[in-house]
Amino acid sequence: MIVVLRIGHRPQRDMRVTTHVGLTARALGASGMYIASDDKGVVESIRDVVSRFGGDFFVEDKVKMNSCIKQWKRDGGCVVHLTMFGLNLPDVEADIKTKEKIMVIVGAEKVPGEIYELADYNVAVTNQPHSEIAGLAVFLDHVAPDALYREFPDAKVRVYPNACGKTVEEL
Amino acid sequence: MIVVLRIGHRPQRDMRVTTHVGLTARALGASGMYIASDDKGVVESIRDVVSRFGGDFFVEDKVKMNSCIKQWKRDGGCVVHLTMFGLNLPDVEADIKTKEKIMVIVGAEKVPGEIYELADYNVAVTNQPHSEIAGLAVFLDHVAPDALYREFPDAKVRVYPNACGKTVEEL
Repeated sequence: MIVVLRIGHRPQRDMRVTTHVGLTARALGASGMYIASDDKGVVESIRDVVSRFGGDFFVEDKVKMNSCIKQWKRDGGCVVHLTMFGLNLPDVEADIKTKEKIMVIVGAEKVPGEIYELADYNVAVTNQPHSEIAGLAVFLDHVAPDALYREFPDAKVRVYPNACGKTVEEL
Repeated sequence: MIVVLRIGHRPQRDMRVTTHVGLTARALGASGMYIASDDKGVVESIRDVVSRFGGDFFVEDKVKMNSCIKQWKRDGGCVVHLTMFGLNLPDVEADIKTKEKIMVIVGAEKVPGEIYELADYNVAVTNQPHSEIAGLAVFLDHVAPDALYREFPDAKVRVYPNACGKTVEEL
């Protein structure tokens, strides 16, 4: 089971980026996302996609960052912090894949120093600056089982692969 | 050689997302990005990262979408359009990896129908809605050689992998 904890989200300014983080998490195999901030708009956008495209991805805002992380660790979970300063993903992914419960912390611009200490792994998807959405996507593709082949039960809309055009079924 | 063509970019509104697209392209092995729109701010942000973190990634805005694609094809390049309606990446990546020159078209919300026709491959990173940044990241990780191990010559700043903290060298 993989969950995402989004920290440093600034309402309004980060709305689109955090929505992309949540949709990426859902599409590539995470079970849900906690947001350590208050943003009803983001929660509603993601829940709307879940209700149309299926699955049971959860989104919860207004969580307290530190207690959310500590509770996860008390429950035996492993905590991975994605950061350009961490160890390169290919060097740690085999180890991380052995864990049953993984929380992936996805920061915005500034991340408090204590997160580096609380995390079991600080992981970089390359040590170059790019995007927390890109980092999460590559991480999940490497670590979540069958990330590119997930099934989403109870969908109202289903898109089928098409070489040239759109095949959409309303269920 | 892989280049990105960003289409449908709306100045202001898409500034952050397009900047993430460009930085992801650079970090994961593309040679440059064309933007079919006019946005000096995005161009400057990405060039600033290039000047500090190295490499020779190019960014060019104000390109004309159709002529940019057609010129690429005339020069023998292959065109890949990333879209949730396309064929799933794992089913086409072996074929795409045989191509020497790949243009990856990354759309925003609305993509003109003709793009599906102009592309040699319409490729989905899952048929679920998520993020063009995530789609590009996974695509490059699968297709660009050594995407997670790129070297960026002439950097002024270098970040080294660290299990817990930040190791940054000013060169």
